[in-house]
Amino acid sequence: MNYLGKPLPNGDLIYQLAEQLFPICRSITGNGVRETLGILQQEIPELQVHEIPTGTPCFDWTIPKEWNIRDAWICDPSGEKIVDFKRSNLHVMGYSVPVDQRMSLDELQSHLYSVPEQPNAIPYVTSYYKERWGFCLTDHQRKGLKPGEYHVKIDSELTQGSLSYGEISLPGSSDQEVFLSTYVCHPSMGNNELSGPCVATFLAKWIKELHSRRYRYRIVFIPETIGSIAYLSLHKEEMQKGVIAGFNISCVGDNRDYSFLPSRAGNTVADRVGQHVLRHMAPDYKQYTFLDRGSDERQYCSPGIDLPVASVMRTKYGMYPEYHTSLDDLSLISPEGLFGGYMALIRCLEVLEQDCVPKATTPCEPQLGKRGLYPDLSMKGSANHVRQMMNLLAYSDGTKSLLEIGEIIDAPAWELRKHVDNLAAEGLLEYD
Amino acid sequence: MNYLGKPLPNGDLIYQLAEQLFPICRSITGNGVRETLGILQQEIPELQVHEIPTGTPCFDWTIPKEWNIRDAWICDPSGEKIVDFKRSNLHVMGYSVPVDQRMSLDELQSHLYSVPEQPNAIPYVTSYYKERWGFCLTDHQRKGLKPGEYHVKIDSELTQGSLSYGEISLPGSSDQEVFLSTYVCHPSMGNNELSGPCVATFLAKWIKELHSRRYRYRIVFIPETIGSIAYLSLHKEEMQKGVIAGFNISCVGDNRDYSFLPSRAGNTVADRVGQHVLRHMAPDYKQYTFLDRGSDERQYCSPGIDLPVASVMRTKYGMYPEYHTSLDDLSLISPEGLFGGYMALIRCLEVLEQDCVPKATTPCEPQLGKRGLYPDLSMKGSANHVRQMMNLLAYSDGTKSLLEIGEIIDAPAWELRKHVDNLAAEGLLEYD
Amino acid sequence: MNYLGKPLPNGDLIYQLAEQLFPICRSITGNGVRETLGILQQEIPELQVHEIPTGTPCFDWTIPKEWNIRDAWICDPSGEKIVDFKRSNLHVMGYSVPVDQRMSLDELQSHLYSVPEQPNAIPYVTSYYKERWGFCLTDHQRKGLKPGEYHVKIDSELTQGSLSYGEISLPGSSDQEVFLSTYVCHPSMGNNELSGPCVATFLAKWIKELHSRRYRYRIVFIPETIGSIAYLSLHKEEMQKGVIAGFNISCVGDNRDYSFLPSRAGNTVADRVGQHVLRHMAPDYKQYTFLDRGSDERQYCSPGIDLPVASVMRTKYGMYPEYHTSLDDLSLISPEGLFGGYMALIRCLEVLEQDCVPKATTPCEPQLGKRGLYPDLSMKGSANHVRQMMNLLAYSDGTKSLLEIGEIIDAPAWELRKHVDNLAAEGLLEYD
Repeated sequence: MNYLGKPLPNGDLIYQLAEQLFPICRSITGNGVRETLGILQQEIPELQVHEIPTGTPCFDWTIPKEWNIRDAWICDPSGEKIVDFKRSNLHVMGYSVPVDQRMSLDELQSHLYSVPEQPNAIPYVTSYYKERWGFCLTDHQRKGLKPGEYHVKIDSELTQGSLSYGEISLPGSSDQEVFLSTYVCHPSMGNNELSGPCVATFLAKWIKELHSRRYRYRIVFIPETIGSIAYLSLHKEEMQKGVIAGFNISCVGDNRDYSFLPSRAGNTVADRVGQHVLRHMAPDYKQYTFLDRGSDERQYCSPGIDLPVASVMRTKYGMYPEYHTSLDDLSLISPEGLFGGYMALIRCLEVLEQDCVPKATTPCEPQLGKRGLYPDLSMKGSANHVRQMMNLLAYSDGTKSLLEIGEIIDAPAWELRKHVDNLAAEGLLEYD
Repeated sequence: MNYLGKPLPNGDLIYQLAEQLFPICRSITGNGVRETLGILQQEIPELQVHEIPTGTPCFDWTIPKEWNIRDAWICDPSGEKIVDFKRSNLHVMGYSVPVDQRMSLDELQSHLYSVPEQPNAIPYVTSYYKERWGFCLTDHQRKGLKPGEYHVKIDSELTQGSLSYGEISLPGSSDQEVFLSTYVCHPSMGNNELSGPCVATFLAKWIKELHSRRYRYRIVFIPETIGSIAYLSLHKEEMQKGVIAGFNISCVGDNRDYSFLPSRAGNTVADRVGQHVLRHMAPDYKQYTFLDRGSDERQYCSPGIDLPVASVMRTKYGMYPEYHTSLDDLSLISPEGLFGGYMALIRCLEVLEQDCVPKATTPCEPQLGKRGLYPDLSMKGSANHVRQMMNLLAYSDGTKSLLEIGEIIDAPAWELRKHVDNLAAEGLLEYD
Repeated sequence: MNYLGKPLPNGDLIYQLAEQLFPICRSITGNGVRETLGILQQEIPELQVHEIPTGTPCFDWTIPKEWNIRDAWICDPSGEKIVDFKRSNLHVMGYSVPVDQRMSLDELQSHLYSVPEQPNAIPYVTSYYKERWGFCLTDHQRKGLKPGEYHVKIDSELTQGSLSYGEISLPGSSDQEVFLSTYVCHPSMGNNELSGPCVATFLAKWIKELHSRRYRYRIVFIPETIGSIAYLSLHKEEMQKGVIAGFNISCVGDNRDYSFLPSRAGNTVADRVGQHVLRHMAPDYKQYTFLDRGSDERQYCSPGIDLPVASVMRTKYGMYPEYHTSLDDLSLISPEGLFGGYMALIRCLEVLEQDCVPKATTPCEPQLGKRGLYPDLSMKGSANHVRQMMNLLAYSDGTKSLLEIGEIIDAPAWELRKHVDNLAAEGLLEYD
């Protein structure tokens, strides 16, 4: 299988990258992000890593202190290590301040987080902007805790450091650009979110291999929210000038739904391309509105930024029970799921790269029969197989793009492109 | 309960006004209208009463003679007064000429009006522009009439006089105005139509108490059709220049439906505000079209007038069985019904007065956490309660009014206004 | 029954014309077309016949050789004439080259065409642009053929000749024109296609009798596809300048569905008129899209031509089982079916001729009562019968045509025109 002449990976390769990245404890800052970006650089050496120092102002925000953690555990009254960061980095609330303390179960409870409705899930909890500490555990385990003196230890530090992010820039033949954004701030979870960086990495590998690119590509691997805000504070003007379509890449790894979340404007190129692709690839895809947003489109589409950024996803964040818990692990994502998310985005890029405005070169229908493109015998039913080509020709009036024609005649733009090439070879169509 | 800092009446006060006005025999002219306006002046001294003389031309119409009636009855062959104006002023056809005559039942029948489908209802019948006389009675009573000589007497007069109407003008801080119109020409009926003048009176009381008014208010109490035509013939130019939204106030007293009837244009400020309010106050409200019109919007929205006048109602005229009969009495309306109609219109005025175009002051989402406006702990589900505020911010791009944003994010404009005030206090929003 | 003062034929006359034309063997060229046009000239002497020589280039096409046929048959091994052109001209594939040959059944089979799913139907098959020969027969008969030597004979010729078409031009009071197109290239079939030329002929008779015509009328009787392409190659510029609405007249003879197929643009005058008429005449009509096209609108609406041509039909080509077989015979069409198709198109022309932009002459509603146009007694329910007139007045603001008002108030434009005339006579409306 290949597109635009380039071979596609199978989903196993994407999944293997997720397996490699899974154990790392990521947060919005710290060495986990750096380690992750380092592994991605092995896949794409073009990836550049940038650091923004703690305290740097970014619009209404400020880069927070850098957080790093070495170890954390709770010992029960008998001295047994019953909660251990080394077994799951979700056990520690993100950005927990250091602690080394003995306390009663009652006192401990106010630092514990669990989900009664999901007794076997460790929830994912963070407190980036208020200094506190906490442990996350299954509600089942929590209910089994016996009174007595507990020993809690979090060996972390909050320091003047920096926020790290990765960026890939691939030039195109025009000044217009396509923007891809994904985030690298989540600890060990699968669909939300290792799927995004893994799929984005393989998209970057495909893009850089293209013989020619119509568009420039800007691909960023950032921490969510503070990362996109910081990035925008540095690149807003050039992005507002150049970006014609962008996708926030998140939740592209499980094998259940396909989902679409539009940009705020709702009718940008990204919106039209994303929905066109899903209508044909996955007609039952779930259509969300911008009111369902929850990731970096919050920043990219905010007033004053107004970028055309949409989300093409598998099962959307917040819409599956395992979301933001330890149940969103490597078993929730799969090679098939990742490949599906990857393919949906490849199709989007393919449509963007290949879209054009075709124009018929002759009034009336051309005589396709003399060129062997039309059946030479007229009998009822016999012309069905050329219907799509005729429909393309009928709408090739020089005012509609392939994408628009595809929407009218209910055909995928990538199939229409083949007809365009055939008809242009016969001199019957011009484009762009 | 109060709005814009002003206390609201409870429905009992509005109902008591209806009780006071109910017995008066009103028509499109005459002393009943004057007596009614006099009672309303006790509630709002700002109400001015105007008179337009019989014979005055008004566009294609002419002010008719003034009609007054003192008494009317039918005596049956035994001399018993079987139909008596003093028991119900609906018994006499509006604008009946005087008569004092004995006649057979057969001859009398051509002057009787009843509704076979509603055997216990006295219908409301008028003949303003053709001189005739008639009595209205229940079909049950009519069927019981025995042959013999009847004596009919109507002690009325049609004279050179004038058409009376009331008007309240309350200045605002701009030259734009809001127009409210209701009618005072119906005799003893409740929903259609004492509810209109009673609710309009209490709206006027609330408006005049406002600390400040963005808009000027023009409130008229007129006879239907000829009154609105006469009023427009005097004020058309200034109203076409100033009125940005108007409401015809009719059928706002029962406690069944809420209803909306749009202006002819259908998309004016009045239309958008009225439907916005009802969508949130009464999601099951009945939506009518301009083809269902039947009151003074016929004039206000006519070609050459083209005012933005819509109707926010309880159960619409013509859509309930008691309509235009004696069954539409004080038992059909209620304090709850009147208060509901009143509140729907208060909400409309509130939205008009408070609408604005908010604009976020910072690119990207602001950091609400540091201002105590956002939860400092991130755990799934925890951010739901700030969703509405975030949605408001996301659409505060300086191009959309609160009303428009409310339609997009499905939130009432009056709730959004509170967020606007909070966010503006933090310096995060500007408006207008 | 008459329209615009002109009497209408009953359907029998249209059907009789179809009976007269049915036996003729028509194709895209040849004497069958000329004979057909000659008969139509007896109905409308204004019909002019034109010839375009073989070899003339027309856009991407070339006028083909002229085809004529005198006789054709298959004799079976016993010498019996089992397939005979004289019994049905569908038996010969259109444009068959001459042949006179003996051959085995096996060899013959590759020249036979039948429809297994319709064992009693002779299919209609043509091969205009590749020289071959063939016979069409019922699948039932084909299955009964026994091995042996068959004798096939087709006495046809393909010669340098010309393509014939007919044209009627009827002047109007403006330079704008209405275009009607139908085709005369189908051999003995009824709904598709003798109904089109027969109905078009009677439309032309009605149009030429009109006292006055707002529009010029261009009516063409052409062979399908090559004929419309050839005609357009000669008249494109003048038609693009003048045609405001056109109808392709096809499949207007059976008595089952009414159907509408829009122009490519979809919102032209022809589209709006055609759908307006069918909504009122046949509310259950079948709405097709331009993707369902299949006749000369393929050319008229092609990029670079872009004429406003729609199709108002009875049962659409391709949508009934008898289509393009011998089962589409004179029993499939009927006087009622033809008259229905005729009337739908008469209504379209009537709406086009009579449309206007009415404007009320007085602000507010006029006092219709004093002119006897409104009931002088007001009692509930009594005003219903003047509702349509009042609705017309309410929308007569000088910006909307009768057609547009009819769409808003759900009334046929031809009924509204009567109100316009009445109200204009009273000085209450002006138009155009």
